Amino acid sequence: MSSENERDCFAWAARDPSGVLSLYKFKRRTVGEDDVSLKITHCGICYADVIWTRNMHGDSKYPLVPGHEIVGIVKEIGSNVSRFKAGDRVGVGTYVNSCKECEYCNDRQEVNCVKGAVFTFNAIDVDGTITKGGYSSYIVVHERYCFRIPDDYPSALAAPLLCAGITVYNPMMRHGMNQPGKSLGVIGLGGLGHMAVKFGKAFGLKVTVFSTSISKKEEALRVLGADNFVVSSDQDQMKALSKSLDFIVDTASGDHPFDLYISLLKTAGVLVLVGFPSEVKFSPATLNRGMRTVSGSITGGTKMIQEMLDFCAAHKVYPKVEIIPIEYANKALERVVKRDVKYRFVIDIENSLK
Amino acid sequence: MSSENERDCFAWAARDPSGVLSLYKFKRRTVGEDDVSLKITHCGICYADVIWTRNMHGDSKYPLVPGHEIVGIVKEIGSNVSRFKAGDRVGVGTYVNSCKECEYCNDRQEVNCVKGAVFTFNAIDVDGTITKGGYSSYIVVHERYCFRIPDDYPSALAAPLLCAGITVYNPMMRHGMNQPGKSLGVIGLGGLGHMAVKFGKAFGLKVTVFSTSISKKEEALRVLGADNFVVSSDQDQMKALSKSLDFIVDTASGDHPFDLYISLLKTAGVLVLVGFPSEVKFSPATLNRGMRTVSGSITGGTKMIQEMLDFCAAHKVYPKVEIIPIEYANKALERVVKRDVKYRFVIDIENSLK
Repeated sequence: MSSENERDCFAWAARDPSGVLSLYKFKRRTVGEDDVSLKITHCGICYADVIWTRNMHGDSKYPLVPGHEIVGIVKEIGSNVSRFKAGDRVGVGTYVNSCKECEYCNDRQEVNCVKGAVFTFNAIDVDGTITKGGYSSYIVVHERYCFRIPDDYPSALAAPLLCAGITVYNPMMRHGMNQPGKSLGVIGLGGLGHMAVKFGKAFGLKVTVFSTSISKKEEALRVLGADNFVVSSDQDQMKALSKSLDFIVDTASGDHPFDLYISLLKTAGVLVLVGFPSEVKFSPATLNRGMRTVSGSITGGTKMIQEMLDFCAAHKVYPKVEIIPIEYANKALERVVKRDVKYRFVIDIENSLK
Repeated sequence: MSSENERDCFAWAARDPSGVLSLYKFKRRTVGEDDVSLKITHCGICYADVIWTRNMHGDSKYPLVPGHEIVGIVKEIGSNVSRFKAGDRVGVGTYVNSCKECEYCNDRQEVNCVKGAVFTFNAIDVDGTITKGGYSSYIVVHERYCFRIPDDYPSALAAPLLCAGITVYNPMMRHGMNQPGKSLGVIGLGGLGHMAVKFGKAFGLKVTVFSTSISKKEEALRVLGADNFVVSSDQDQMKALSKSLDFIVDTASGDHPFDLYISLLKTAGVLVLVGFPSEVKFSPATLNRGMRTVSGSITGGTKMIQEMLDFCAAHKVYPKVEIIPIEYANKALERVVKRDVKYRFVIDIENSLK
């Protein structure tokens, strides 16, 4: 055990499946030759934080420090590190290691590493330790999994890009959704959905938002810039959109009728699934007639993440966030469960975790 | 009503939902300026013939002449027809008309015509008549929907290409399955599945056949040339193939577990669905982790059909068929229901329908 003095990393951790977070001190590894040590300034709150602090998948390892949308300032680098220097602003996303030698790692799609990417928290790292996330004062990460935050891009807004942002950007790029003039449907208007709308508009698409609640209409159209808003229970509106969309980004994790949405796609249209409803179920006829596609995705590789950060800076794509102190984290997680957030919480670690 | 003498087209038709076929005489339209008239020599038997002769979709219009895998010899052409001349061997597939002016028709993807392609039987043609299929002595078709049968390619073997062949060839091409060295799984070994194996081998793929029955193993490997055969209930074999396939062509219309098969795909792997099980159901995690894709397809456009016929001739890709006389059609349809055919029946119209 490390002595009390060596436990220099301050964090908020869940201790059991209640998921309640409280102050926790621990020691991180010393900076290795390929490592970057970051003083964390901001960390976004993702639904994954709820899942694992509350042991919803049955594999939580306590004490558990969540957080995988991390932005910080480099304070130390290893002897081999060339991409970063002290003082740089750097981001870390949902994984902090991978085998670095498989076909996917070689292609900088490390999230698909054949040995499995090492997730940023609650995972067993190559040295056998349990990874601990960004609700903490600092983190040590191999430079390969660190990203340059573009100059002038606010750190608080960069944080949600590292999970919510890349989760929609990656499949949108992979399926050619960056073709101006095409039409995009976005199902669900949470952290992922609002980024899909913003990327869609930045790509020059005509964006229709589908939501179960009319209450989001004004904001979707005026604040996020969507072109059209449809309450999914409105059968007439839904019918009028039959075969009209080139693409759909489906961010909804609540159960919803897939046939209804797939039938809105044009011939050869693509629905990208990034949410996790309990199941995906549809009629083969809905897919086959019209040569439609349903394709899944999770986050993205390091090459695409850096590309996305640079794209967001160049095109002024900013997530809409609610910045909170760490003391609000428990309440924030409750509100995430209730989907009561526009559209992402970001913890101001720098000014509140001391 | 046309007089008895004018009813010069001899056919076998179903009269009611029993689906029993018997001799039927009717009149086809006279040859228009863009039309080709074919003396039919061969017609393949597709499961669609069972569906509509037996009114399984509730929309059958009797008397119903099935058959949409048609090969014949040109006997007459309209004044505008330039692509064909009397004596040419010509094929007709699953549709005989479309709007000819929408984006899909303009792209020669007529099967996706926005006004709907006119199917070869049991459909209402633009002149208001009900289309009648290839279990008949001749047919009159707009030249656009007629295909040149390559020299030396046997007419009996060309027939199944017009539906079974194009149904697998089209999505295989669309999803890049013609890359030598890639791995292909084929689910189901009927008319469509055996063509998927043959195309797979012609494309240079490593082909694994999945079947519920070990009885098909020898033939799959020795006759069709598959590289591997797996009984889908063998959990050890299935597990060993986890994340090993680039592509799957799923031809099974019986219900089957999609998670099991999707999990055999590598990262970014594609499962193409061409069968019609009662539903498609899987866990989003199976699709999302690994960025996998499920994509549907039905037949193909006229450009792709001609390309496929030429490919089959150039690469000596031949379906394996059982040639039967028209008198055997009722029995053959029963055997199709029981999946008791290797792998496609082709009716020798020329020598048996008189």
